[in-house]
Amino acid sequence: MQKTNHTIHAGHHHYGWDRSLPPILTVAPGETVELDIQDASSGQLTPDSTVADVLAFDFSRTNPVTGPIYIEGAEPGDAVKLTVQHFQPSGWGWTAIIPGFGLLADQFPEAALHIWRYDSQALTPAAYGPGGRVPLKPFAGTIGLALAEPGLHSVVPPRRVGGNLDIRDLAVGSILYLPVEVAGGLLSIGDTHAAQGDGEVCGTAIESPMGAAFTIDLVKGANLKFPHFETSTPVTNHLDRKGYYVTTGISPDLMIGAREAVSGMIDWLGKAHQMDAAEAYMLCSVCADLRISEVVDMPNWVVSCYFPKVVFE
Amino acid sequence: MQKTNHTIHAGHHHYGWDRSLPPILTVAPGETVELDIQDASSGQLTPDSTVADVLAFDFSRTNPVTGPIYIEGAEPGDAVKLTVQHFQPSGWGWTAIIPGFGLLADQFPEAALHIWRYDSQALTPAAYGPGGRVPLKPFAGTIGLALAEPGLHSVVPPRRVGGNLDIRDLAVGSILYLPVEVAGGLLSIGDTHAAQGDGEVCGTAIESPMGAAFTIDLVKGANLKFPHFETSTPVTNHLDRKGYYVTTGISPDLMIGAREAVSGMIDWLGKAHQMDAAEAYMLCSVCADLRISEVVDMPNWVVSCYFPKVVFE
Repeated sequence: MQKTNHTIHAGHHHYGWDRSLPPILTVAPGETVELDIQDASSGQLTPDSTVADVLAFDFSRTNPVTGPIYIEGAEPGDAVKLTVQHFQPSGWGWTAIIPGFGLLADQFPEAALHIWRYDSQALTPAAYGPGGRVPLKPFAGTIGLALAEPGLHSVVPPRRVGGNLDIRDLAVGSILYLPVEVAGGLLSIGDTHAAQGDGEVCGTAIESPMGAAFTIDLVKGANLKFPHFETSTPVTNHLDRKGYYVTTGISPDLMIGAREAVSGMIDWLGKAHQMDAAEAYMLCSVCADLRISEVVDMPNWVVSCYFPKVVFE
Repeated sequence: MQKTNHTIHAGHHHYGWDRSLPPILTVAPGETVELDIQDASSGQLTPDSTVADVLAFDFSRTNPVTGPIYIEGAEPGDAVKLTVQHFQPSGWGWTAIIPGFGLLADQFPEAALHIWRYDSQALTPAAYGPGGRVPLKPFAGTIGLALAEPGLHSVVPPRRVGGNLDIRDLAVGSILYLPVEVAGGLLSIGDTHAAQGDGEVCGTAIESPMGAAFTIDLVKGANLKFPHFETSTPVTNHLDRKGYYVTTGISPDLMIGAREAVSGMIDWLGKAHQMDAAEAYMLCSVCADLRISEVVDMPNWVVSCYFPKVVFE
């Protein structure tokens, strides 16, 4: 493990991206920073919350990010290289259906909330109240730099400079490369998740406050169009041991294909595991993966939703 | 391995789906059928072919499927359950860029062809001329039933009843469930691939003639909307040992995101491995995977292209 050069507390957070925000820290390339990261509700949800707290949610306080960090020597055209060193998970998290948000928002107009408790040291699979146990693999959903365009930009959409990428494979050991658009890059990190499936289909993962450490480096003149990342080990070892049950969606539109695949999985979880549709939707969000099986057999594409069988073993 | 009850030779093939085609065989649920399967060119391409043969391609002979097989007792609303028993690969295959076809057809107007030779017994990773070795995992790209609608339907697009699904995880041990629309189901199988990435981005995989065996069963009253399948083991063990290099595409449109992710990977293979763009595009098609990392952070979605590092180890 890298020696930590700097520690940033969770109070040093902001909402949205803005190149005019003053940096709270300046680091040299090669240094390691430890950050305290709030959950995506800024603490509005707690281990004792109920669905009423989801409905009372103040969206102006969504997805706080810790930072910004100025990286010495970072200039437009460079890439910030981040090596994910470790996480110190808090042991609790939440998954919610937030009305108007999520892949199947039209089908799930009612709010829902599930509170998770998990072993923050052993990170053993977390029991899901309605059934099953979800393997955990912490990562930060939001890792981004400031945009070149002045003004305040919403934290919700990811962009060329990263941000709310929600790429679940940005776990310990992964290396992320983000395109720099302003001097110093202005890195901020938030939205830590204890587990998430590819797609994050209900709109939330296992949202969980935690500590995190990253080594920050630079690749001069990388000229990336979008973020890149790499891993040195398999990414699904924690959940693929028993294989998958898979539903498909076939359509000339990838979005419709994705929606059909997830709807099919929710139906299957109802039939095979007697799970309520909203419960199944939240479970898919934290452990099922959306893959594009083929995107060339005109005019119909296949999107598949992979549910890891280990959850019910 | 299951005892084979029936053997069908490759001469018993047809082009396109048509419920009026007479079955060449009737099977009882539980029986195992061994089929000889031609490659997707119906033998127009051979181990000695050149790119001129791609340009001379007769498209009326694309994607022959062996069958149809009538399954006793199969009725609309049932699902045909197919267990993939084994493959007898031929030891050669082809990957082509066919003008007008593929995810990046606009960027790759020129035909290209790569002929592969591989060890049909050991199935060790196959050397790619321009560089790298691709792990093999045979499967049938096209497994489908007849449509309820009368008339001849193109074999190219997959549909509710399956067909040209190109799901690379339908390898040995997988179980596929296809919705039945006509009495007997009328199952046909073709388009065997020695390897393919999720997406099949250039439009062709390692197209390879081979023998294949499936156990055919029925699930009465399954009432599936689209095909389902399941595996009992990890699906990426053959290629994820060294991790992945990953490019992303971020867009409000999943198709644009997929195109950007693949374009980014082609650029990266050029920089990191001095590979020509067309060669890189074909390599992505046979081993890189398209995943939907998030589809909820309005209005921008993230599609990721995962390239297995083991290819260059």
